[in-house]
Amino acid sequence: MLIAFQGEPGAYSEAAALTFSPGASVLPCPSFEEVFAAVDSGRASHGVLPLENSIGGSIHRNFDLLVEHELPIVAEVEVLVDHCLLGMPGTALDDVKVVYSHPQALAQCEKALGGMRGVELVAAYDTAGAAKMVRESGRRDAAAVASRRAAEVFGLAILRESIQDFADNITRFCVIANPRERTGEAAVAAVKVQDANKTSIVFALQSRPGALFKALAGFALRDINLTKLESRPLRGRPWEYAFYVDVEVPAADAGLQRAVADLREFSHWVRILGSYRAWKA
Amino acid sequence: MLIAFQGEPGAYSEAAALTFSPGASVLPCPSFEEVFAAVDSGRASHGVLPLENSIGGSIHRNFDLLVEHELPIVAEVEVLVDHCLLGMPGTALDDVKVVYSHPQALAQCEKALGGMRGVELVAAYDTAGAAKMVRESGRRDAAAVASRRAAEVFGLAILRESIQDFADNITRFCVIANPRERTGEAAVAAVKVQDANKTSIVFALQSRPGALFKALAGFALRDINLTKLESRPLRGRPWEYAFYVDVEVPAADAGLQRAVADLREFSHWVRILGSYRAWKA
Repeated sequence: MLIAFQGEPGAYSEAAALTFSPGASVLPCPSFEEVFAAVDSGRASHGVLPLENSIGGSIHRNFDLLVEHELPIVAEVEVLVDHCLLGMPGTALDDVKVVYSHPQALAQCEKALGGMRGVELVAAYDTAGAAKMVRESGRRDAAAVASRRAAEVFGLAILRESIQDFADNITRFCVIANPRERTGEAAVAAVKVQDANKTSIVFALQSRPGALFKALAGFALRDINLTKLESRPLRGRPWEYAFYVDVEVPAADAGLQRAVADLREFSHWVRILGSYRAWKA
Repeated sequence: MLIAFQGEPGAYSEAAALTFSPGASVLPCPSFEEVFAAVDSGRASHGVLPLENSIGGSIHRNFDLLVEHELPIVAEVEVLVDHCLLGMPGTALDDVKVVYSHPQALAQCEKALGGMRGVELVAAYDTAGAAKMVRESGRRDAAAVASRRAAEVFGLAILRESIQDFADNITRFCVIANPRERTGEAAVAAVKVQDANKTSIVFALQSRPGALFKALAGFALRDINLTKLESRPLRGRPWEYAFYVDVEVPAADAGLQRAVADLREFSHWVRILGSYRAWKA
């Protein structure tokens, strides 16, 4: 098992990969696209991708890539985004003159960092890359915003804990796998996930009164519960929407299969992204 | 009319404010909370807030603040996020050694900026603030990622255009107003918006099979079209979800009023955020 993730060792995506499979080998990739390419080509057996964040919302880019690549989701993992300020051991908070991190992490710690006078914020490739930079420079006037795990990986001290603006900052990741069969639904079917109890589906609808209601009727009639539903306008196709839906049953469920058959009648297209075990903290 | 927005002059939020009301006076605020506070207190007559981005998804924080403050939405505006690299007039692209911008803007231009060798990326308060910094320093080895408008505001040259990773980067803003009546639904009713044809609603449901289907039945029965539907787990309240819905009719519509009455029967709470004219480019 080799799990591809976007970022450097110590990144939150790596934490998600190791939560999925403790002790697994991991493959750092510079972009989401390269995570998909690594799994697509078989270079990695699995990939880990962030799907949504409790503050920032859904990461549409990865839903697009899931639809495009047809690599099935086989698991989900939630990670608490808990940013720390890391420095060389012995660094005092008052000595810090420059803070490195990924632009989004800097944005999530605006209040805490804004309260540090005369400190310059510098964007880095990712949170763990920032921690690495501080370690390699050995500077005692520099710090990084990164995870607790990045402190361990790079032997840094935690100068301040939980500096994000909002405490409830959780990112939900999916784990994709290469089923060695390249044909959409067949790929999903080819991956046997034990104890699957959740299925993710994407479908496209014309925007018309009652269209969504009809599309959801098949689920409601069979008492299938939806735990996520999100519409997204399809750019370049006015009045057409993609919907992301998560349901609380496995893809193999006979009721869900009939509901999906109903859904196909009312949708432009339907794609089952995967069936897997719901995350439980 | 005085319109509060988050950021500095030249920010995309300011562009949204001036698109809503060309030539209006604007009030820059350091945070979303302070935009709401300015409108709440009557210091500003209106406020402009980003609600969702075509790449990044919904900005949950502002939906939370809309529910909390009960200030009605009176209009919507869409702005194309078109990032440019700005420098002092006469600056050559090869001279640039440091690029300033808001962390999220730097993240949105990862590809273009990553291709500039040896360039340091430094986070700034916002995109326009970065442009201001370049102007005030007068440095020819510095540049800012900001809007075309920021170039005009600060007298900078455009070194490169449209450097964002994705072309279809659109942000949807809402305009809130102080109705001088402080009681929720009454506030929405007190604001007379001419030619309103769209209404935004938030409601909370228990996660149960068919719950959403029942909640949507009132809209479907009356042929009311939904243009946005998004679920969001309510943290700290397991199995309870908030839903954001946009419908294609004004709040005054008799059918919508009956649909909302139905919705109240099946929801924990319902809040009408506002009724306004849908944006048309």
